[in-house]
Amino acid sequence: MTSIDAIRGKKVLVTGGLGFIGSNLAHRLVGLDADVVLLDSLISEYGGNPYNIRGIENRIRVCIADVRDSGVIAKELSGIDYLFNLAGQTSHLDSMNDPHTDLEINCRAQLSILEACRKHNPTVKIVFASTRQVYGKPLYLPVDEKHLLQPVDVNGINKMAGEWYHILYNNVHDICACSLRLTNTYGPRMRVKDARQTFLGVWLRMIVEGRPFEVWGGEQLRDFTYVDDAVNALLMAATSSHSRGKVYNLGGECVISLKDLAELAVKVSGTGEYRISSFPPARKRIDIGDYYACYGLIQEELGWQPLVPLAEGLRRSLDYYRSDISHYI
Amino acid sequence: MTSIDAIRGKKVLVTGGLGFIGSNLAHRLVGLDADVVLLDSLISEYGGNPYNIRGIENRIRVCIADVRDSGVIAKELSGIDYLFNLAGQTSHLDSMNDPHTDLEINCRAQLSILEACRKHNPTVKIVFASTRQVYGKPLYLPVDEKHLLQPVDVNGINKMAGEWYHILYNNVHDICACSLRLTNTYGPRMRVKDARQTFLGVWLRMIVEGRPFEVWGGEQLRDFTYVDDAVNALLMAATSSHSRGKVYNLGGECVISLKDLAELAVKVSGTGEYRISSFPPARKRIDIGDYYACYGLIQEELGWQPLVPLAEGLRRSLDYYRSDISHYI
Repeated sequence: MTSIDAIRGKKVLVTGGLGFIGSNLAHRLVGLDADVVLLDSLISEYGGNPYNIRGIENRIRVCIADVRDSGVIAKELSGIDYLFNLAGQTSHLDSMNDPHTDLEINCRAQLSILEACRKHNPTVKIVFASTRQVYGKPLYLPVDEKHLLQPVDVNGINKMAGEWYHILYNNVHDICACSLRLTNTYGPRMRVKDARQTFLGVWLRMIVEGRPFEVWGGEQLRDFTYVDDAVNALLMAATSSHSRGKVYNLGGECVISLKDLAELAVKVSGTGEYRISSFPPARKRIDIGDYYACYGLIQEELGWQPLVPLAEGLRRSLDYYRSDISHYI
Repeated sequence: MTSIDAIRGKKVLVTGGLGFIGSNLAHRLVGLDADVVLLDSLISEYGGNPYNIRGIENRIRVCIADVRDSGVIAKELSGIDYLFNLAGQTSHLDSMNDPHTDLEINCRAQLSILEACRKHNPTVKIVFASTRQVYGKPLYLPVDEKHLLQPVDVNGINKMAGEWYHILYNNVHDICACSLRLTNTYGPRMRVKDARQTFLGVWLRMIVEGRPFEVWGGEQLRDFTYVDDAVNALLMAATSSHSRGKVYNLGGECVISLKDLAELAVKVSGTGEYRISSFPPARKRIDIGDYYACYGLIQEELGWQPLVPLAEGLRRSLDYYRSDISHYI
């Protein structure tokens, strides 16, 4: 079991801090009285949004910089107790169209961050946000951490390398690091402009805007982690003594087909309609079919489990976007 | 089964072509009347050596260029039927001391090569030289292709990414590519200046020079592939219709401890002495313990197996360096 309270008063750096998960984490960290710095590039295609820190902007420091800028990273890492390393290019499709940019952010910048830790702050504790995308198309379900890594897009390959740099620096250079393989995370402050972060964001936006949304396929099974649960996992991983050098799956409190998810979203909303359509070819080639994770390892070692039921998470998300949608489109 | 003869008269590009395996492949390709271009950077720490093509220099074209130079690569790929993509940084220790250079060569350049193929030569057939290093410390023996990838050094991580780019471009972009995971390859034309390519090269050099050599540890089990066998595998993978998108282990005709290997080398040579010493700390941290591969998959699908017995391979290697050592030190 872990004690998140250990983070109280500590110096914390969050890369991708104005993004979806980073900003939700920031709200939580402020509640824990941590000394928080958020680093974000605010590149328009990515998830960073200054509105995400509304209400806490005076209690944190924001550094607008790119993780590819190793000079800034080295400076910001100085004296930090915890690094939540969440910055990344997340779009599978963008990674196929522009593989080198994905490599620069998801591979090279990660190596620079770790080198900076090794040289300037070897006692920092790092939690890296990895992704289920490293597994590729599941060979069995639920997918546990013993599943082969067979990524099906450039993003998955580069995230795999980025994750392993962290484990390696833990094992060889005594940097304290671990990695969480996130599945579909959703909730307030996610990008809903397009499907670069998650298709579910687009669905919820369409519902809020009174427009029909498209469900590709519909039969695929997925699990979804509400962002507060993901934030819990990040904090538990950071403060636990068991997490060193470990890789943990996150998961959802249920497994659901995309069609049933669409139904549930419409039901929770009380409005909305969707249509089933076939997969666009460029997506189909990199689609992974059914996926859901076994999160037994993090449950056993850190005591984490998803707490927010899907219907409740959808309700909270819809409430958020109903009032704040203008800041996300 | 495969027909290596399909390569006769074809246009072939070998990256790392002046290196150990590349140059042995080049000699074979010339024998097959292929139209051969060797690309090599001749960076002094790597395996490239102009002497390696003595005797065939007038029957091939050599392009001195770095795989990181994407412009040259795109030009040289034009019209090529087969690409043997062997260029790489191979030193595990160098990859830990200078991880970014390893990334540039083993990751980014690979992505550039594949992008160039996609854009300028989508019908090329590629064989990528991967490494057992992607497996890290074996969880079981012999290691087959279903073994988890858990690399223990930066080189292993970057080679893993480089390999998966190839498989991905095969699966998604219809580039024809496959990967061979080489284990300890040895034979004439290997680098013997230092242990950057293989420790065995240094041992043989010491024997030839009448100096004692050092065996670190001695108990570790390994398998060794004689370079002619590795070249056979490359040619079979290139010309087989079964190899598309596949990853194959190579292996050795026997499994041997390093101490027994040292004994055998001295016995085959008729001279030489060694001493057992403990592992230097920087090496110990990234050592993988016992390793030997199951090569059943490539045997079953392509009909490959190692043909040259270890003692015979050592004898041929010693003969080569006895007459040509001055060109390798």
